[in-house]
This record gives sequence, C-alpha cells and structure tokens, in this order.
Amino acid sequence: MSAFEPRPPFYLGIDLGGTNIKSGVVEDSGRPLSSVSIETQADLGPVVGVENLAEAGRLAVQQSGLKWDQIAAVGLGSPGTMDLSRGMLLEPPNLPGWNQLPIRDLLAAKLDKPTILQNDANAAAFGEYWAGAGRNTRSLVLFTLGTGVGCGIISDERIIEGRHSHGGECGHIIIQMENGRRCACGAYGHLEAYASATALVKRAHELLAEQSTRSSLREIPAEELTSRAINEAADAGDGLARRLMRETSYYLAVGAVTLMHTIDPDIVLFGGGMIAAGSTFLEDIRQHIQKMAFPTVAKGCKIEYAELGGDAGFIGAAGCARAAFGR
Amino acid sequence: MSAFEPRPPFYLGIDLGGTNIKSGVVEDSGRPLSSVSIETQADLGPVVGVENLAEAGRLAVQQSGLKWDQIAAVGLGSPGTMDLSRGMLLEPPNLPGWNQLPIRDLLAAKLDKPTILQNDANAAAFGEYWAGAGRNTRSLVLFTLGTGVGCGIISDERIIEGRHSHGGECGHIIIQMENGRRCACGAYGHLEAYASATALVKRAHELLAEQSTRSSLREIPAEELTSRAINEAADAGDGLARRLMRETSYYLAVGAVTLMHTIDPDIVLFGGGMIAAGSTFLEDIRQHIQKMAFPTVAKGCKIEYAELGGDAGFIGAAGCARAAFGR
Repeated sequence: MSAFEPRPPFYLGIDLGGTNIKSGVVEDSGRPLSSVSIETQADLGPVVGVENLAEAGRLAVQQSGLKWDQIAAVGLGSPGTMDLSRGMLLEPPNLPGWNQLPIRDLLAAKLDKPTILQNDANAAAFGEYWAGAGRNTRSLVLFTLGTGVGCGIISDERIIEGRHSHGGECGHIIIQMENGRRCACGAYGHLEAYASATALVKRAHELLAEQSTRSSLREIPAEELTSRAINEAADAGDGLARRLMRETSYYLAVGAVTLMHTIDPDIVLFGGGMIAAGSTFLEDIRQHIQKMAFPTVAKGCKIEYAELGGDAGFIGAAGCARAAFGR
Repeated sequence: MSAFEPRPPFYLGIDLGGTNIKSGVVEDSGRPLSSVSIETQADLGPVVGVENLAEAGRLAVQQSGLKWDQIAAVGLGSPGTMDLSRGMLLEPPNLPGWNQLPIRDLLAAKLDKPTILQNDANAAAFGEYWAGAGRNTRSLVLFTLGTGVGCGIISDERIIEGRHSHGGECGHIIIQMENGRRCACGAYGHLEAYASATALVKRAHELLAEQSTRSSLREIPAEELTSRAINEAADAGDGLARRLMRETSYYLAVGAVTLMHTIDPDIVLFGGGMIAAGSTFLEDIRQHIQKMAFPTVAKGCKIEYAELGGDAGFIGAAGCARAAFGR
C-alpha cells in the first residue's frame, strides 16, 4: 500500500456555516481526501438546509473517489446555540429560523450513517488536535479570529462541551471588568470586544478620529478599512497601524494567559483570517504571554498558528465521528 | 447492615498544608469516618514532614475503628508547585525546602499502600464533587476564598490537572487588564488581587484612607481589621463595609462568569473562610452573575457555597485514590 493510498476507516466531516457548507472525507490518520463547498441557503429554511448538508456530504464522497458504503460515520459541525447530547439546534443566531431543529437525526436519516453533532468552534479545535498544529498533544486551546473570537478547548484528549453546550465560549471571557468595551453579545469587557477583526477595525476608526497622527489608514475609504488593510499598513511601517496590531496581540495574550492558568494546555493556537498578520503578530503575542503567565506554564506551553485553515471544521467534525463511532 | 455501619472499600485521605495536616478515612460513598489534624512542622524539613503525613494517616485509621489492612488506597493533597504524573513536589512556596521531593513514593513506601498525589485545591474540588455540594453533578468549579483564591475544576467527572499540573489556577485569571491590582504572585489584574480575604482587607484600608465617611471599621485597630471583621460590620449595617463586600461579590462574579463561559459547569461553588459572610454575600454574587453570564448558562448553572469546609481536602484526596485505584 503506497503512502498516498487512502486508508480505511473513512469519516465524512461536514461544517455548517451561515453562508457556506464545507465538507470532506477524512481518513483514519486525519488526512483529508476531498474538500467541497456549497452554499448553505440558510434563508430557505432548515428543510432545504439539511438537504444541502446531505448534498455537500455526497459531493465530498464522490470527489474522494470512495464508495458510499466505505464511509463509517458522519460528523457535523454547526454554530450554536445547541444541545449536543440531543443533537439539536436551539436558537442559532447565524441560522435564523433553524430553531429547535433535531439536525443530527435529520441528517443521519438522510445519509443513513451514524452521525454526531458538534459545535463548529469545538470541531475546529478537535481538527487541529487530531491532524493540525496540535497533533501529538493531549490538550489545546484554539482561538479563531474573525468577525468574532471563536474558541474550542481540548483537555486530556476530550472537548470541553459544557453542561449547556456552551463550553469554550472564550470570546466571552471578561478581560476588562471596569469600563470594558461592549461586545457583540451585548455584555461588556469580553475578549471578543477587543481582539476580533471587527473590534480591530472599530478601534482603528476610534484612533483615527481621536488622533491627528499621520497614517496611511486615513487614505482608505471608511468602508474598506478591514483588518487585512490594517495589517498590511502595519507591515508597510505605518505607526498607527502597528500600534493597533500590537494592542491586539496584547489583548489576545491576556485571554491566552487566563486560559493557560485555567486549562494549562500543551499548546495555544490562533486561527482564522487574522493570522494573515504573520510572524510579527504571533511573536508579539508570545512576548506578551511570556511576561504575564506563570513561568513554568509560559515556558512549557507552545503558542502557534493553527494549520488547517478553513478545513479545520470539517476535519475536526470527521474526527469527532471517529472518536464517537470509530474502532 | 445498618445505614451507619461503615461500608468498604475504604480510602485514606491526607491533606497537607503549610501549618497543619488533616487526615481522615472515607468510605466508598464519600462519608468520612474520621478526621484528625496534626502540625506539619514544615520547617523541620521533608523527612520529618513525610513521617508526620504517615502519622496523621495512621491516627485517622485508628480513629475510624478500622484495621490498617481495610484501607484500599491513599490520596495525598498538597500545595504546589508539583508534577502530578511523577508524584513530585517541585518548589512549593508554602513548604520551603521541600523541593524536588518524590513525596508520593516516599509516603507510599511508609504506608505500604497504593498512593496518589493531587493538588490540594483540585482535591477539595473533587471532594465537593464526590461528596459535597457538587454531588450528582458531572462538572464544577470551586473557588476557595482565603489568603488567596484557590480553584479546582471538574469537567466531565475529571479534574483538569493541566500539562504542568497548573490546571485550575483561576485565582490568577486576568479580570482587569488595564491598571489592574498587583497580585501576591507579582502579576497584575488577577482575580486573587481583588477577591481574596487579603485583598478585601487591603481594599478596606485604602477606602478608609481615601474617604472620610463614618464607619465602624475605623474603630478597629489596623492589625485586627480582618475579612471577618469587615463582614460582621457589613452585617451590622456599616455602609463602607457593605460596599466592600458588594464589590467583592462583583469581582467573584466576574471570575465565575469567565469560568462559566469556559467550562460551562453544572455548578460553581465558593468555599473557604469568607463564606462566613453568609447568604447576602452569596445572593449578591448570584445577582451579578445573572446580569453578566449568557442567559442559558446563567439559568442552568447553580451558584452555591461549598459544604465540606476544611474536610474537603482530605475527602477529595481519598476520592482521588478511589478514582485511581478503586474497583
């Protein structure tokens, strides 16, 4: 058997997002054999949506070159709110109208495979743990930096799901209790209100309004001022953009230290769009952590970027299927 | 067999503190059959100390009325720093000179029983989970409020020990990243720097110096101004003392919310000397949490005082022995 010949058993992972569904077949080692993406059409409601999930899964199996009966089990990652043990979506803000939906069993019936539901951020963390930057570890924390700050935690090889399927919602830990910024969730002082891509852009607008410092960011039309644009300006040497990126790295370090003093993981990972900021940004995060964390923990815990990018969700969902139904 | 007749198997728990060693025999249900306390004599060094641990254990078995060979296994709770997997104390600040000590194996050799080492705060959390306010749950967070803020986490029926035996060090989560108070550990903005008994007394001194408000606290000599005195003054209606207690309840709620959004436990417990503050203090904590936590989590998570008091450590240590060696 060649190193590149697919090795059974095989698991199908499906990552449900508000806009797109990603899916792929993953072999027992964690290597993906296919990767497809179709539109969720969330606004057409859950009946169409669940059929689209099944369709994405079928396409992924087709693309992998495997036969349907070679698939051992299916893992589905989805945004919450949810009840993991019952396989239900409850009231997911990103999937309006998909309320009180027994999504796991509906999908299992369509695909005729053992199926497990997992929170999408948890699934991504499990993907990195199984087959990404966290392989060969037993515990990790993954922060996914995008519109919000997603988070998933693996402790002793298991996902922290929590009693109400709200484990690892660490975008919403409180890092600033006095005069904290308002978070998208409505509460104050949360990590996400400081360190998400959205928060970065907001802080940029504030700083540009407050300060008269020269900055290339002023030449960018307000609606085009993205986290990527700020990052590129920082790379090009713009002082104000650099300050914004350094502050972001500090906020993330504060969040990471709280998690390191809570979970004490082998590795803390940062993923999502903002890791395009590259090695300086990561190095800044590391240096802040080094100053703030307990020396033993700081010394022993790796701080890295995630490796699986947009595939982490479906790879991790397949990994959850493997953990639940494999061997 | 009567309900009060001891039921095998039996486990010996030993709780090592800087000043005292507590020990007791615990039956399979979690009910303690004995409870003894002797001096640690930590300053006489680890050779005497380990003999004292063994002696406390022997006394506890004697007091229980059981025979030595009825004890199935031993659990030892100790302050860190430690390496749990190797059963070693590393450099425990509360046990000066007990460095690089293979305490688990030394004790096992003296007692000739299978022996497990656990962090003392983790052991207390496990005690509450097994036999205290957290029984019939699968996950809990225990904050122990004393000189510092101790913490232990149970998630899915297991202690979060962490990679460097630093799991659940949640006295040292960052709740205030800007202009945070200095913690005993040297870092800034930690929960412990706001919410420990020590921090409460420090804040009282500051407030008395800053404000000219009338307060019964002014009549207490500085060295007698304890957390208990502040609590009693609050109970008696003193405005300044009430403010201090309310602020403390807020800080604890902030810490609890961060843990609830990370672990999403069945129950959050508060233990230690400060729970003498009674039901108003607990109710204040609850109300702050209710305002700050995700509604689903806030609704579903109980907030209670711990039940086992000073026995939590040895009961939990015995529970760890049961989990490791039982059945």
